[in-house]
Amino acid sequence: MPNNKIGGHYSQAYDEELQQAVMRLLQMAGLAQQQLSDALTAFTSADLALAKQVKAADRKVNNFEVDISEHCLDILARRQPAAGDLRLVLAVLKSINDVERIGDLAKRIGKVLLKEEPGNRPQQSQLDELAVMGQKALQMLQRALVAFEKIDADEALDVLREDRAIDDDYARIMQQSLTMMMHDARQISISLQVSHVAKALERVGDHARNICEHTIFLSKGRNVAHLSDDELQQVVDKKRD
Amino acid sequence: MPNNKIGGHYSQAYDEELQQAVMRLLQMAGLAQQQLSDALTAFTSADLALAKQVKAADRKVNNFEVDISEHCLDILARRQPAAGDLRLVLAVLKSINDVERIGDLAKRIGKVLLKEEPGNRPQQSQLDELAVMGQKALQMLQRALVAFEKIDADEALDVLREDRAIDDDYARIMQQSLTMMMHDARQISISLQVSHVAKALERVGDHARNICEHTIFLSKGRNVAHLSDDELQQVVDKKRD
Repeated sequence: MPNNKIGGHYSQAYDEELQQAVMRLLQMAGLAQQQLSDALTAFTSADLALAKQVKAADRKVNNFEVDISEHCLDILARRQPAAGDLRLVLAVLKSINDVERIGDLAKRIGKVLLKEEPGNRPQQSQLDELAVMGQKALQMLQRALVAFEKIDADEALDVLREDRAIDDDYARIMQQSLTMMMHDARQISISLQVSHVAKALERVGDHARNICEHTIFLSKGRNVAHLSDDELQQVVDKKRD
Repeated sequence: MPNNKIGGHYSQAYDEELQQAVMRLLQMAGLAQQQLSDALTAFTSADLALAKQVKAADRKVNNFEVDISEHCLDILARRQPAAGDLRLVLAVLKSINDVERIGDLAKRIGKVLLKEEPGNRPQQSQLDELAVMGQKALQMLQRALVAFEKIDADEALDVLREDRAIDDDYARIMQQSLTMMMHDARQISISLQVSHVAKALERVGDHARNICEHTIFLSKGRNVAHLSDDELQQVVDKKRD
């Protein structure tokens, strides 16, 4: 891993354990990203086989979570890490929680398709909008993971702010779905499908945002959950004591 | 705190720090429970003032989360806890995450009411069903917190299984809402209100379930997320090595 901030201990084995924790988090996240991407493809192209595959793959993400969590607990118990090492282990523990939820949300998108009657499909324009929103969420997640790996608080703050665009997409799509339902009762179940997928993508944005917060915590030593935009900027601008 | 399992160190200050972490978690949870209860009362009785109060109180729960998280990080850094102490600190860190989300969900229920046009109200039978579901979620949460404080894995497993009844309520209410919408387009926005509240309560059940899992982890030293019912029972029945 091209990261000179992790490690530097006398014990090379300890360095490797910390690096392993991050590497396995990134592997787990790669799997969750793939599932989310597959879930979107399955939903927009009505690919039932792919949706079933996404549903089955959730177990792999869950297994990763249990493995990494045990690896981190083992480091905490045996190495009793301090300062930056402690924050690294805690940030990995928090992040696997978010990645696991992203896997769940991918599964949920697959299930929306599997539960519907064949032929009961959203319009192409609705599918296109969800595809665009999905790409934004996937890109935000990818950038959040890169910032985490580089322990780059500036980059993490930049990515965190992308969540607003995803929230805006969500609000717009929900409004359209509601209007559509009101206008034509036959559109209700289709509009609910669209709403459920949009809601899942909005939650993916929230979890990507959480990963950015964990990166700022890792870099700056401050818990930044619930801070305002200005307060966040101040934390990121501040040099570590 | 009448709990003889926490503490017992030569350093009384260390014992007190661990007990403080649990006590503050329980205080935080008490506040979130109150908010959830108020949110339900506000929604079922259309009490706008109370709904606004719930919305404003969310900040207090968030502040608790930040404080407790810093207290726990401080223990990890200064005391370098091992074994049961380490698990206790980690279980508190995980649980405050769930309690914070329950506060968010209470706020969301309050917002559902605040966003609606006055007079656009669900039927009494729908409100009654939500009230019953809400009581189940509140009771489950209360029992989960008691099991946590007692570090009682058997009790935690018992409580965890209550989540199924809440999931069943959710499925039934969603099905009724959908039927109602299909039948009468004027019911759409009311049915969506009901669905959003039911969804929030279903998520409260999930977070109460998570707290039970953290208790089993604390008591048994095993991460039990994603285990089947039989596997859970085996973990709880097993004596600690």
